[in-house]
Amino acid sequence: MANGTTYEPHPAGPATIAEAAAMLRNREISAVELTAHCLHQIERLDSTLEACITVLADSALERASAADAALATGRDHRPLLGIPLGIKDLFQTRGIRTTAGSRVLAVWLPDTDATVVAKLAEAGAITVCKTNTHEFAFGTLTPPTRNPWDTTRVPGGSSGGSAVAVATGECLGALGSDTGGSIRIPSGWCGVTGLKPTFGLVSKAGVVPLSWSLDHAGPIARTVEDCALLLDAIAGYDAADPDSVNMALPSYATALAAARSPEDAVRGIRIGVPTNYFFDLLDPEVEAAVRAAIAQFAALGAHVEDVALPAALDDLFPVYRAIQKPEAFTYHNDQGWLDQRADLYAPEVYANIRSGGDYSAPDYIRAQQTRRRFTDDMRAVFQRVDVLAMPTLAIPAPRIEDYARPLTANGQELTGGGSLRCTFPFDLTGQPALALPCGFTVGGLPISLQLVAAHFDEPALLSLGHAYQRVTDWHSRIPPIATAQL
Amino acid sequence: MANGTTYEPHPAGPATIAEAAAMLRNREISAVELTAHCLHQIERLDSTLEACITVLADSALERASAADAALATGRDHRPLLGIPLGIKDLFQTRGIRTTAGSRVLAVWLPDTDATVVAKLAEAGAITVCKTNTHEFAFGTLTPPTRNPWDTTRVPGGSSGGSAVAVATGECLGALGSDTGGSIRIPSGWCGVTGLKPTFGLVSKAGVVPLSWSLDHAGPIARTVEDCALLLDAIAGYDAADPDSVNMALPSYATALAAARSPEDAVRGIRIGVPTNYFFDLLDPEVEAAVRAAIAQFAALGAHVEDVALPAALDDLFPVYRAIQKPEAFTYHNDQGWLDQRADLYAPEVYANIRSGGDYSAPDYIRAQQTRRRFTDDMRAVFQRVDVLAMPTLAIPAPRIEDYARPLTANGQELTGGGSLRCTFPFDLTGQPALALPCGFTVGGLPISLQLVAAHFDEPALLSLGHAYQRVTDWHSRIPPIATAQL
Repeated sequence: MANGTTYEPHPAGPATIAEAAAMLRNREISAVELTAHCLHQIERLDSTLEACITVLADSALERASAADAALATGRDHRPLLGIPLGIKDLFQTRGIRTTAGSRVLAVWLPDTDATVVAKLAEAGAITVCKTNTHEFAFGTLTPPTRNPWDTTRVPGGSSGGSAVAVATGECLGALGSDTGGSIRIPSGWCGVTGLKPTFGLVSKAGVVPLSWSLDHAGPIARTVEDCALLLDAIAGYDAADPDSVNMALPSYATALAAARSPEDAVRGIRIGVPTNYFFDLLDPEVEAAVRAAIAQFAALGAHVEDVALPAALDDLFPVYRAIQKPEAFTYHNDQGWLDQRADLYAPEVYANIRSGGDYSAPDYIRAQQTRRRFTDDMRAVFQRVDVLAMPTLAIPAPRIEDYARPLTANGQELTGGGSLRCTFPFDLTGQPALALPCGFTVGGLPISLQLVAAHFDEPALLSLGHAYQRVTDWHSRIPPIATAQL
Repeated sequence: MANGTTYEPHPAGPATIAEAAAMLRNREISAVELTAHCLHQIERLDSTLEACITVLADSALERASAADAALATGRDHRPLLGIPLGIKDLFQTRGIRTTAGSRVLAVWLPDTDATVVAKLAEAGAITVCKTNTHEFAFGTLTPPTRNPWDTTRVPGGSSGGSAVAVATGECLGALGSDTGGSIRIPSGWCGVTGLKPTFGLVSKAGVVPLSWSLDHAGPIARTVEDCALLLDAIAGYDAADPDSVNMALPSYATALAAARSPEDAVRGIRIGVPTNYFFDLLDPEVEAAVRAAIAQFAALGAHVEDVALPAALDDLFPVYRAIQKPEAFTYHNDQGWLDQRADLYAPEVYANIRSGGDYSAPDYIRAQQTRRRFTDDMRAVFQRVDVLAMPTLAIPAPRIEDYARPLTANGQELTGGGSLRCTFPFDLTGQPALALPCGFTVGGLPISLQLVAAHFDEPALLSLGHAYQRVTDWHSRIPPIATAQL
């Protein structure tokens, strides 16, 4: 913490971005107070939770002060003006070290901001912290970050720091990245809301790549509405990202406001519930909560129907690995790091990346072809339904010591990707997927619902998720550790 | 030839598709006469030229007879009704052996037609022959086919049979495929017109793949107008081809008719002439003819300007090979042929395909990334120009014995891909490219101009090519061998 300053908690407490923005406009809180509150949370919690790699107290307060001046004019209507955010440390920040959670990059001060970091700054947001990530985003543990609902458990990853920071009010929203589930998994295990947008909707320029054909950048926040506000700021064409799609975009947050009631948003929407794969191997509490959420949608007027998804799902994880690993290897090898900085990687991350070099071109080609057939098959599913509903994760957050081999309630090992099991298929297809809280275990751990839509149909996804959050309050629960001293 | 029948030449002689269609409507010729004329040409020429693998005399005459009946009603306005075509033997034909030019497939009778073969039949066209191809389209020689302008020379390939058949009136138009130049190279060396359409515009379903991310299907004909007529029949979305693009399409032939004069079509069009790569290593006669064609466009009112193309062109051929070969290997290996039918391949084709298995996944990934950067750079060029003009081939058709190492006039070896040098870059980018006759060497060998446009801008390409053919007559010259006995 800069200069040993101590920050004051604010009685308004952690809020959503939407609430905070309204309070800022109404002068019920200042951006400096809001930022100081986040810094207070970091100060008192982060030595335990380790969500942050770098805390930007001075620059954040400076920017907050400027935001207050802009707010005082009454003429600056940028929706994120004065909102404190966390940025996963995989995203380049100009002049601020960007480690990708690795000692390999411990001394890197990038020349430029990632496109989406610059976009958030242009939208008036304030970066309070760079958040922890599994090394180079290659894993779902995020050491040494701890789950705020139970500090003996993992937060999930790789965007674990972002999810923990949002869950505890260290920031009001955050950027994450998702190559196999890295936004949705920590959002799910930490009880917050995370969106993996459609591949190509949000620029990855300036994000340290894991696997270029699978990487997605996206928001983590407390609510769907907040995710929509962040998506409005970060979505859009960027010539610096070759995967970026140039198309006209709606205002996602505005679209949410169009529904007069939850019923208005949900009525007639066709929700598909997979009959295969996604409901296999579930912890019974997870299954009960997810099915209750689906029943809630039915009660709001949705058409809920069973859908059989492509059988290919059962054999898809090795296909995923045959794309993810060689792409990761290519990047790390071509940077020269695998040879020159081998000892700076965590051994298991190094071994995983290195093994990507053992795949042949035909292995990779076959995997991309299988992926394409699977994507076409999944695309066809959305001719019949608007949204698929399923769990984000088969089990609640495991204990740190059990992480290496996460087990279901009846002791089965999670096949098909472990913690990635329910998330990686949509990194392969590039379809948008939203993780949102839908309950808690008896032991007090969050459970997460995953909603998936057709490519670029974020409006349907966000609309449905927002309607759910208007009639439930799972998303508003705060981990006890975050409120204990308030 | 079926039953030893002998077919009569028709005094109308080889015509273009457009001319033949008008004659059919006006009852100046019947479809049976037209088809018999093509069969006559095959009968007397093909033992020398070997353009055809399979001749479909009986079924063609049957279909011609049905076409005549339909024409007699005066109510069947399909533009290809009664037009005899050749189909490269890489395209599946139901119940008709499809060899891909290989002994590996010598006994294959497909269950279904390739999508584009079915589309041509629906448009009323008649298949008179399956044409020769370099084995599995992997090469540009097309043994044993010979160049009709000089039978000691190669026709080019891999769609060599299609180009020869069109050049000699064995058919009026043909299907080819192009992975590195296989439509444009034989079109160029045989003095006909060939179009490689934009990647995704024409279905490849039912075409034996060479390299799935590079393969294109397209027409070969005597004129640009005929290519437009064929493209109208074969373009369009096909769910059976995962690369097929679903978009609204113009009528290409109708668009050509919109220009009242060649000047009307050309005036104000921005034609870029590359200052690097494409005019290197040219035979002087080729350069003179191509520059004269460009001057012709300037005289018609085009804005002609020099453009520097991406320097990456000089190092692009190994990148191409690192995509083409592993994709070819993957297909052949996964069919089981490399192990089970090894002795049925030509040894050099087998060795080439087999070597695709030696590439690593990172080799392939790197090549695809380089390809993407090159494509983006080439896309940017078309912000400044509408069409690029350049040679299709650096040299005229080489003698068969010189083919393995084609040399320029001053004895230099053609670097950067040999005969593919000027064509393969547009298989990488997927941009449409048209090869059309623009002159002859003193020795009587055809020279070809290549025009290239932005993705899906076939209308610009065809319009420009058609205007050129309205003011020149290179495309109407017939190889002496094809007319000698008429």
